[in-house]
Amino acid sequence: MTIALYDLVGEDAGRPFSPHCWKVRMALAHKGLEADAVPTRFVEVASVEGGTDRTVPVIRDGDSVVQDSFAIAEYLDDRYPDRPALFGQPGGRGLARFVEGWSQRTIHPFIASVAILDIHAMLDDENRRFFRESREGRSGRPLEAMQDGRTPERLAEFGKALEPLRATLKRQPFLAGDAPMFADYIVFGAFQWLRIASPFVVLEGSDPVAQWFERCLDLHGGLGRSVPAAV
Amino acid sequence: MTIALYDLVGEDAGRPFSPHCWKVRMALAHKGLEADAVPTRFVEVASVEGGTDRTVPVIRDGDSVVQDSFAIAEYLDDRYPDRPALFGQPGGRGLARFVEGWSQRTIHPFIASVAILDIHAMLDDENRRFFRESREGRSGRPLEAMQDGRTPERLAEFGKALEPLRATLKRQPFLAGDAPMFADYIVFGAFQWLRIASPFVVLEGSDPVAQWFERCLDLHGGLGRSVPAAV
Repeated sequence: MTIALYDLVGEDAGRPFSPHCWKVRMALAHKGLEADAVPTRFVEVASVEGGTDRTVPVIRDGDSVVQDSFAIAEYLDDRYPDRPALFGQPGGRGLARFVEGWSQRTIHPFIASVAILDIHAMLDDENRRFFRESREGRSGRPLEAMQDGRTPERLAEFGKALEPLRATLKRQPFLAGDAPMFADYIVFGAFQWLRIASPFVVLEGSDPVAQWFERCLDLHGGLGRSVPAAV
Repeated sequence: MTIALYDLVGEDAGRPFSPHCWKVRMALAHKGLEADAVPTRFVEVASVEGGTDRTVPVIRDGDSVVQDSFAIAEYLDDRYPDRPALFGQPGGRGLARFVEGWSQRTIHPFIASVAILDIHAMLDDENRRFFRESREGRSGRPLEAMQDGRTPERLAEFGKALEPLRATLKRQPFLAGDAPMFADYIVFGAFQWLRIASPFVVLEGSDPVAQWFERCLDLHGGLGRSVPAAV
């Protein structure tokens, strides 16, 4: 039976943009599993699968409902152990958690600071109101003030913060080594979020991180490219 | 046959302090392999095992000579596959490289900035001259100017830079998950370097990173504690 993936979208249901949902799209393709996306808007997230969960991604696989991108990847490796692994053993899940912790603190805040208005612009009126209220309530600042990352200084800082990733990708084609694993998809999700939401460019083409991202876009039949970049 | 480990020391051969040599000490213990340390001073490094290598650690295992901490860990897993793994498969080596890249850029420079004069003070006169000349030649600044990290601002910055590690260690006892692997020893080596070289404290006892470090000191019969902390 096909797995259902509740996937965040804006006004255009054909442009899913959530970094966490992209991690799961890539993970499902990595396992060779068919999935049907259920386009889900911000205001619909709270009622997905009966409303027990407050975030997407959520998947339904037969009788199993799993929420949270990392938990979904763990579920897929446990449930489908004969398909390509998302995590090596032992230690793979632990180290992928470190990659997640690093990505969430290093890449996500910067992407929000250069693209939050573009994300807002992808939404319909009702979801724009929801998005603005929830983000402004959390930060105490208007969205317009949150988008403060588009300066040469902040871009240079971000470039420097990527150095551990860059050094790794100078040695090997993927974060997990010769071939991608869930750790790659964790970081890919962040850059794919930006690619789909905003035309703003944060990496030079010659950057080993940019070249790795292109390799990730090529994976699984070009799944990542199936949604065109923002223009 | 016992493995020989060329291990960096200062004036006191009983206080090996190199972060990279500590990674290998822990890796050897993890594999349950006996090793004889060969105390090696800075000026002796260039002539270790015929002088082909310019850094320690170096190990000799029978006819095999291996240099560089990461290469040694890979060698040990390849040569002794039936003993506890330092890297999971697939992906473990790749992700440990990312941890190494992060540790080298986040922890090492800060530790040098709070303890470089203490490291200098551990050496005899000849090695002090060598250490000062090589470090000052590389940075263009006197050692005294390089030790500029002992301010509340820099300490707070460092605390924040550790957040990806801290978040991971709030979830799980070791960086690799339930049990330590080479990725743990990579980061352990950096903090052990500081512990042995300097009484300067960079972590509060309540910090999950400090608590993880204590767990690492307990591993392998308290190997890390066999050298007392600097006073």
